Amino acid sequence: MIYISKIMHFSASHRIYNPKFTDAENTRIFKQCANPNGHGHNFILEVVVCGEPNPDTGYVIDLKELKCIIQSEVIDLVDHKNLNIDVPALQNVLPTSENLVVFFWQLLADKIPSGKLYKIKLSESEHSSVEYYGEK
Amino acid sequence: MIYISKIMHFSASHRIYNPKFTDAENTRIFKQCANPNGHGHNFILEVVVCGEPNPDTGYVIDLKELKCIIQSEVIDLVDHKNLNIDVPALQNVLPTSENLVVFFWQLLADKIPSGKLYKIKLSESEHSSVEYYGEK
Amino acid sequence: MIYISKIMHFSASHRIYNPKFTDAENTRIFKQCANPNGHGHNFILEVVVCGEPNPDTGYVIDLKELKCIIQSEVIDLVDHKNLNIDVPALQNVLPTSENLVVFFWQLLADKIPSGKLYKIKLSESEHSSVEYYGEK
Amino acid sequence: MIYISKIMHFSASHRIYNPKFTDAENTRIFKQCANPNGHGHNFILEVVVCGEPNPDTGYVIDLKELKCIIQSEVIDLVDHKNLNIDVPALQNVLPTSENLVVFFWQLLADKIPSGKLYKIKLSESEHSSVEYYGEK
Amino acid sequence: MIYISKIMHFSASHRIYNPKFTDAENTRIFKQCANPNGHGHNFILEVVVCGEPNPDTGYVIDLKELKCIIQSEVIDLVDHKNLNIDVPALQNVLPTSENLVVFFWQLLADKIPSGKLYKIKLSESEHSSVEYYGEK
Amino acid sequence: MIYISKIMHFSASHRIYNPKFTDAENTRIFKQCANPNGHGHNFILEVVVCGEPNPDTGYVIDLKELKCIIQSEVIDLVDHKNLNIDVPALQNVLPTSENLVVFFWQLLADKIPSGKLYKIKLSESEHSSVEYYGEK
Repeated sequence: MIYISKIMHFSASHRIYNPKFTDAENTRIFKQCANPNGHGHNFILEVVVCGEPNPDTGYVIDLKELKCIIQSEVIDLVDHKNLNIDVPALQNVLPTSENLVVFFWQLLADKIPSGKLYKIKLSESEHSSVEYYGEK
Repeated sequence: MIYISKIMHFSASHRIYNPKFTDAENTRIFKQCANPNGHGHNFILEVVVCGEPNPDTGYVIDLKELKCIIQSEVIDLVDHKNLNIDVPALQNVLPTSENLVVFFWQLLADKIPSGKLYKIKLSESEHSSVEYYGEK
Repeated sequence: MIYISKIMHFSASHRIYNPKFTDAENTRIFKQCANPNGHGHNFILEVVVCGEPNPDTGYVIDLKELKCIIQSEVIDLVDHKNLNIDVPALQNVLPTSENLVVFFWQLLADKIPSGKLYKIKLSESEHSSVEYYGEK
Repeated sequence: MIYISKIMHFSASHRIYNPKFTDAENTRIFKQCANPNGHGHNFILEVVVCGEPNPDTGYVIDLKELKCIIQSEVIDLVDHKNLNIDVPALQNVLPTSENLVVFFWQLLADKIPSGKLYKIKLSESEHSSVEYYGEK
Repeated sequence: MIYISKIMHFSASHRIYNPKFTDAENTRIFKQCANPNGHGHNFILEVVVCGEPNPDTGYVIDLKELKCIIQSEVIDLVDHKNLNIDVPALQNVLPTSENLVVFFWQLLADKIPSGKLYKIKLSESEHSSVEYYGEK
Repeated sequence: MIYISKIMHFSASHRIYNPKFTDAENTRIFKQCANPNGHGHNFILEVVVCGEPNPDTGYVIDLKELKCIIQSEVIDLVDHKNLNIDVPALQNVLPTSENLVVFFWQLLADKIPSGKLYKIKLSESEHSSVEYYGEK
């Protein structure tokens, strides 16, 4: 079994704010992440696929093909967007890294043509990240 | 002459949109950067000060002191903010990296207690950056 | 299950020297790491916590809270210190990365308020690191 | 159990081309990677060993010793080489990262003097990598 | 005056070998870089343009436009190529970083539509690089 | 004119303490950097040489030769050392980055066999650095 990884980037803005809470509660819990006009990040997205290499190509999956799938299924949806407003599927979701990584798993899990999706990792900065391995 | 550099980070969102242009012109010129709801970045800010080391301390400037000045003069103003809306001094400025780096120079140039401001560098991503050395 | 990671830094000096060995044996085994006056590193510490996101906050653990815990439990104890002399709990421990990572686990395992400690990783340089997942 | 990692580099050129396929098929499948005169990479090789620290040294394995083993068993064989032509053991192998990482495992698995080989990771670029944990 | 930088990547193989020298001299001077079958690198190319920002766009040059120019003038010519064989203009040139950076300057200097070319930097690895500012 | 750069690393410990000051003054001025038992860093040292490429080799200076010079003149003197105690030439020098970079210039300026020394840069961490271009 080989694990093959592709890293891509996108830039987006978001606001972490739960409408169930008052403004004061949102500020106490989410601090500056609750600022009304949002803030932004360069997100780093890593997608890991596992499988056996094809004996004729030596590839688990062609990385150029994997890159196209991540681009069309995820990056085109979120890059240079406001995640709270511009992505319909996220409109009732708090766009924390934890929730985004589960959302990206749902977008990608059935789209991998060879091998299978093993891990998604999302970094908001060089000092923090979140990983998800799907439901087991 | 010694050149001493401090690197700090902030996260912000912005929209590149000139009200003198029509929406169609803005989209043609600024492409996805003109999306109405903004997008975001982790900006990397480098501030370089030059001078002679103080013989008693071996420092051009104490980096902890320089860090506090950058924090209070720049980072507190822009971190976790929407640059188009939340920063009054930028409200009639297109918040491109080129214009931001000149703005940050104006904020910092008179606040450096030893040595003098030599360069400001601002990176929107690991693949692009802008540098400014002041008016000469 | 989500795995969330926080990376922090500290600078410290240490000497790898076992008093059970002669000086010649220490030099043969530990080479330049046994130099009597110590040497130093910028250590990179990664702490990974796993758990389910809280449905109201979208967080496994608030990263700002996790950062405060790592700061007070670990960084304040070791940053800008000589690990052989300045940290009482390490005085009978060889301060190798292997032993440090187990020591940091003991400091942190009971202090995580939501989710549970999953991994600690410590890097002495960009080319080497050590990971520990606790006793299993 | 501690997992200890050493990262090393080598530069090599390769061509991804399967003689079972026609030239047209090779170009369709492998695209620019099938260019007749090869192309090159700075490969990053990470070797992870796991084990219990020796109580007298605090080491799972001495990283200087591990570095020497990786240098003599792997780096000397492939650094500044054309992988299709200059490495006899690879002459009937498609030199994809997937196949290289299995080949490196075979070279290293029996040479680790303390602890045992746990993982080999090979990166062709900062945006892609492959991992192998041996046959299980 | 603002200095704006774009970083791009390409992978290529090369051999450093001067036909004026004997094989033994080439090996003595260029060591493993003279290996007959070449070796490869992930090259990092930085292009810096300087100028005044356009008051209507806030841009010295649109980075998306600069990226397209670097792609078509340089990257398409050298990416996934053997620099000694596949690039006609380099066939009588030793493909050292020093000579490549002057060659890239010649390709780009007249193609910059706003601002002017200020610097080209080429890195063969994370530990070495070459810079050129044109003839002065 | 071409500028060619080599980056190398060393680990060392130091203490910033001026014997002209009282202990209280040292702590007020240098804070945790004045801790009696020292602390450490992984220093990153960049050496830049400028010159015209030799027409026969395409090199300003052979980077393997430059690496050997930096190793023997600087790295062997300071790596895995306590800079306050183990380096005789530094015993009356405050080992700040500012003073170290001037000291390294003096060690290297006359040892460069082709081209001439242009810049020395020293980083104590990924967020701070110091540059020196010699006396002008």
